[in-house]
Amino acid sequence: MLHEHRLFPADATARAIAVKLYETIKDAPIISPHGHTDPSWFAENKPFANPTALFLQPDHYIFRMLYSQGISLESLGIPQQGAIGDPSAAQQVDPREAWRIFARNYFLFRGTPTRMWIDYAFQTLFGLNERLSGDNADEYYDIIDKALQTPEFLPRSLFDRFRIEVLATTDAAVDTLSWHQQIRDSGWKGRVVPTFRPDAVVDAEYLGFRENLVELGKVSGEDVSSWKGYLNALRSRRAFFKSMGATATDHGHLTAMTADLSLAEATALYERIYAGRLAPGDVELFQAQMLTEMAGMSVEDGLTMQLHPGSVRNHNLKVYQQFGRDKGCDIPSPTEYVRALRPLLSKYGNEPNFTFIVFTLDESTFSRELAPLAGHYPCLKLGPPWWFHDSPEGMMRFRETATETAGFYNTVGFNDDTRALLSIPARHDVARRIDCAFLGRLVAEHRLDENEAFEVVQDLTVNLVRKAYRL
Amino acid sequence: MLHEHRLFPADATARAIAVKLYETIKDAPIISPHGHTDPSWFAENKPFANPTALFLQPDHYIFRMLYSQGISLESLGIPQQGAIGDPSAAQQVDPREAWRIFARNYFLFRGTPTRMWIDYAFQTLFGLNERLSGDNADEYYDIIDKALQTPEFLPRSLFDRFRIEVLATTDAAVDTLSWHQQIRDSGWKGRVVPTFRPDAVVDAEYLGFRENLVELGKVSGEDVSSWKGYLNALRSRRAFFKSMGATATDHGHLTAMTADLSLAEATALYERIYAGRLAPGDVELFQAQMLTEMAGMSVEDGLTMQLHPGSVRNHNLKVYQQFGRDKGCDIPSPTEYVRALRPLLSKYGNEPNFTFIVFTLDESTFSRELAPLAGHYPCLKLGPPWWFHDSPEGMMRFRETATETAGFYNTVGFNDDTRALLSIPARHDVARRIDCAFLGRLVAEHRLDENEAFEVVQDLTVNLVRKAYRL
Amino acid sequence: MLHEHRLFPADATARAIAVKLYETIKDAPIISPHGHTDPSWFAENKPFANPTALFLQPDHYIFRMLYSQGISLESLGIPQQGAIGDPSAAQQVDPREAWRIFARNYFLFRGTPTRMWIDYAFQTLFGLNERLSGDNADEYYDIIDKALQTPEFLPRSLFDRFRIEVLATTDAAVDTLSWHQQIRDSGWKGRVVPTFRPDAVVDAEYLGFRENLVELGKVSGEDVSSWKGYLNALRSRRAFFKSMGATATDHGHLTAMTADLSLAEATALYERIYAGRLAPGDVELFQAQMLTEMAGMSVEDGLTMQLHPGSVRNHNLKVYQQFGRDKGCDIPSPTEYVRALRPLLSKYGNEPNFTFIVFTLDESTFSRELAPLAGHYPCLKLGPPWWFHDSPEGMMRFRETATETAGFYNTVGFNDDTRALLSIPARHDVARRIDCAFLGRLVAEHRLDENEAFEVVQDLTVNLVRKAYRL
Repeated sequence: MLHEHRLFPADATARAIAVKLYETIKDAPIISPHGHTDPSWFAENKPFANPTALFLQPDHYIFRMLYSQGISLESLGIPQQGAIGDPSAAQQVDPREAWRIFARNYFLFRGTPTRMWIDYAFQTLFGLNERLSGDNADEYYDIIDKALQTPEFLPRSLFDRFRIEVLATTDAAVDTLSWHQQIRDSGWKGRVVPTFRPDAVVDAEYLGFRENLVELGKVSGEDVSSWKGYLNALRSRRAFFKSMGATATDHGHLTAMTADLSLAEATALYERIYAGRLAPGDVELFQAQMLTEMAGMSVEDGLTMQLHPGSVRNHNLKVYQQFGRDKGCDIPSPTEYVRALRPLLSKYGNEPNFTFIVFTLDESTFSRELAPLAGHYPCLKLGPPWWFHDSPEGMMRFRETATETAGFYNTVGFNDDTRALLSIPARHDVARRIDCAFLGRLVAEHRLDENEAFEVVQDLTVNLVRKAYRL
Repeated sequence: MLHEHRLFPADATARAIAVKLYETIKDAPIISPHGHTDPSWFAENKPFANPTALFLQPDHYIFRMLYSQGISLESLGIPQQGAIGDPSAAQQVDPREAWRIFARNYFLFRGTPTRMWIDYAFQTLFGLNERLSGDNADEYYDIIDKALQTPEFLPRSLFDRFRIEVLATTDAAVDTLSWHQQIRDSGWKGRVVPTFRPDAVVDAEYLGFRENLVELGKVSGEDVSSWKGYLNALRSRRAFFKSMGATATDHGHLTAMTADLSLAEATALYERIYAGRLAPGDVELFQAQMLTEMAGMSVEDGLTMQLHPGSVRNHNLKVYQQFGRDKGCDIPSPTEYVRALRPLLSKYGNEPNFTFIVFTLDESTFSRELAPLAGHYPCLKLGPPWWFHDSPEGMMRFRETATETAGFYNTVGFNDDTRALLSIPARHDVARRIDCAFLGRLVAEHRLDENEAFEVVQDLTVNLVRKAYRL
Repeated sequence: MLHEHRLFPADATARAIAVKLYETIKDAPIISPHGHTDPSWFAENKPFANPTALFLQPDHYIFRMLYSQGISLESLGIPQQGAIGDPSAAQQVDPREAWRIFARNYFLFRGTPTRMWIDYAFQTLFGLNERLSGDNADEYYDIIDKALQTPEFLPRSLFDRFRIEVLATTDAAVDTLSWHQQIRDSGWKGRVVPTFRPDAVVDAEYLGFRENLVELGKVSGEDVSSWKGYLNALRSRRAFFKSMGATATDHGHLTAMTADLSLAEATALYERIYAGRLAPGDVELFQAQMLTEMAGMSVEDGLTMQLHPGSVRNHNLKVYQQFGRDKGCDIPSPTEYVRALRPLLSKYGNEPNFTFIVFTLDESTFSRELAPLAGHYPCLKLGPPWWFHDSPEGMMRFRETATETAGFYNTVGFNDDTRALLSIPARHDVARRIDCAFLGRLVAEHRLDENEAFEVVQDLTVNLVRKAYRL
């Protein structure tokens, strides 16, 4: 299924250069500085349950597409975790039956990156070379199911087999990082590091925000009823994360809005937030202020800061109520950066040793806003194409719209950003191929020398990642 | 003038695949589920008047470009139908003289889809193989003029010659559909179906809105002075349209805003609208509410719903005052979908058997908003590139920006959307060629198997259209 | 370093056509109707100081990229002209040392148009064929430094050598144009013409606005304390500029907003502006009204009007305070045109003999707003890709997104828009190559005949520029 020259330009000249470039980086180690795999996998190192539980049920890229064509989430055994959902629903579905639905509808994924990732896993890990369909659904299921019970398919084995140099997880600010501790204690050498994600104690509309604040006070030993205590609690957690190997923080906000309030204003705002006496705009303003505070703490402690704005979460209320978060119903919306980031950048944008990586779901901002900002501010770097744009066309458009203004050296390599362990090498492989395809075209069009392209592709694959994330 | 490989990729590998794909669909029947041809043509089956009246005067793509270069609309005999226009102006211009102006300026259309459509008609229908110019203007005129008087160029002959399987017109909610009835009564087998377009009774700023409401009450026999009666009148008209063959409704709004008001709020809003006592925002809110009501009726009666938002109509007031609507002065503007559609989608987005086709004039929304929405909501499908984007580059960008997130199967094939009968086969041919070009590249880049591409191109050309519009 | 086929398509068929097209226009004269070179260069005709002063210190494209990677502006000797800057700082840096920093970091410019422009100058003017790096920094410096002392590198010699037919500068409304007078008086035949740029007397937040108004009154001999006197002062200056060879005006605004106030409203607004008693929104409204006034004056005097909106100036306050304006900290932001331009276009959009060239930093507007507007309004023409989009990818996207709706003939050729004299031929060469590449693809895809492409490329290179700017 996987042609050795897939994703390279159709044009023979550009393709030949891309092929040569790819040869030099295809076996480079995987550095995954941003993702959502579960640290318990590596702590416990237990086998995955079955093909459906591994491929289908945790992957919203897959079940959102099936759902869009009228296939119910219940029939796929997607866990029901919402306000009115029944958590045991996943158990009620025969995983083989769910797999057959997936297989019969696999043609829906034609032309999508999801198809590319899954085929990659099917072929390279399970030796499956015939495209999945209703006809071979059971054969697929049996082969994968059997393999999952072997030691080669335990999480740590896969980690090693994928040549992962470092893998970052994403962890709540109040997380005790016990799985990470267990990995450290186990003696296993795989480098799995946490990332500090404080959204649940920064977004006053986050589910359980009040309880999260209480928990923050508890784990940090700080009095979070005051602005100062709250900030110290966050400082303390950041230090703890850093001691556990973290090199970065991550912030998921509805907008990129930042603020730079006076101490009096910020104090008063926090008091309203803490007391739950919200004035209109307080929720967004507090998040905005907290981005600037977090930037200040990054200047202090050296943690790289990541901002992921622009997703309207849980757009489909019916699905949210029954199935909960992260069910493929988060939809991007227009995102403004120039005015939004100005307060933060005015305060910390010129600081040496501050790295601020910004992502977007609004591609129109790459050439208009983000590349111009990144091509000027010392702190600012462009995150790789995110989410729906982690795709061949999306990546190519990123290089085409960002490079001329920001150059290659204000970018930070690739993030796989995934919950799906098996997709990690596939995603990195797609990114590497697209970078080679882009560079191949630049060389073929005599816009870059071939010897330069060999340097650049190394930088994009490993050097820029290590530098930006201090890995 | 028409190269057999036009619009296929320059690259030989991709082109060879595109050529093979095109062979399998170039003669497929034309399914035209959305357009603006005049049903009286097929009811009366009279010859078209002359080349200028056929090609130039009804086609705002043509005369807007001529106007942009300083050529007056008067000199082209464009009918003056505005507040201060003189309706007899078209007669005052010698059609041959207008044709000569068009011919002398035909070079202005280089690089535009309009040129492609017209050349296609010139060559395939009239055997004209030399590019139109001032030099051959009269020769062109004479050849076309003569042909139009022959039976082969009567509307029904053209319909058959174009292998049109079904052609949808667009008709006001109060339309008696008498031309459609006359077609049915005539015994002719051509399938021409109406489309329910209620804008004129939904948009309180529409010219003649009050009179339209009165007419709606009359033709439906409902008392439209009440909210309930108004809704029933619309229900009744939908049922009538359906009985006359309609399978879809169409809604042209300034924005994609939808609303989901309580019965009390909606009733009060309608009372203000009906009484002409408008509060600020009422016009837009009423349209927003009506989109949701229409969605509800589609859930009931199964008519596919189409939404065409984002055009600022009659931007050039001077032209509007003298020449009236649809004179090339409608200009797209930024259009937001994610928040705008949420009320409607929250209410009806998960309904089985509801098909909601959304179009856009704001391409930046394809990757950011529309493909993510269509790749999740069961009801939602992406309309083909519309209006200014019904073009080779526009169609290609649509496939490139929408496919990775929405797949092929949340799209609905092609709409020619035209008032120009002769352009129908040309427009479908361009769409088919671009789909083949896109698929050819995917195969050449090993992102899709060749055998899959043959299936997909059939789906894009006929199967997805029939399914989405229930034809 | 410069391959003869650089920037042409990789595909052999399209490239062969591009090469043939390029042969016919590569030696065409340079017509530069919009730029920012210094007229004193041509008046005084003195040698440039040294390589650093010539290439590095005036070019914000270069030092913004270096700054983004943590290199201080002080180390590069960028003049400090801000509120807290030290103007003599440039002198304190050894220019050779600054050059070495630039050379060591030249790899940062890979993939950027800046690299292409500089390499072009290095090779064609100084015979330097090995890519600049830390290793050859001194060699480069010595060769360039020596050449600059020769007569061949005096400004007028370069002007002639570059085959510049006409070069427009940009000049404040109150400028006495003494350098232009000196050029005229000198007997030198080079055509250097001014452009009327009234921003500093139209934008009430412009640095020194009050003083500028006083100066405007002085140089025009009008009483600028009244609205009528102010307008007459501007009319008088426009007439003076026109007498000195100007054929165009230029307007840099934050937005594209225009207004059409009544005389009473405009008078009252100006009185507030003049008295410094600003109500909220006055600054923007006054600029908006002035765009319409300027359009009216263009209708009167025939000067072509240019609008450059959308840049948030001096985004980095720290850099602005120390170094002043134009230091690479101007960042584009989303720009709306359809509603913004309506007042101006409603009043003057249909006037014959009015040419209104609109630029954008927001590429998403080309297909959505600007091409539709330009494809209708007789006055409106699309300016070439501006600033960050004056690049191979940016130019190609412009042709791809604008041509299908606006055609080629509502565009106006290329603007180099530069402060860097040596980059002029390089920039025009890039634009010509990209136009050939685009046309080559259209011909290879059988969308345009080859003989037409030869005509179009002449039009794009010289004819459309001369027509739009009346040169």
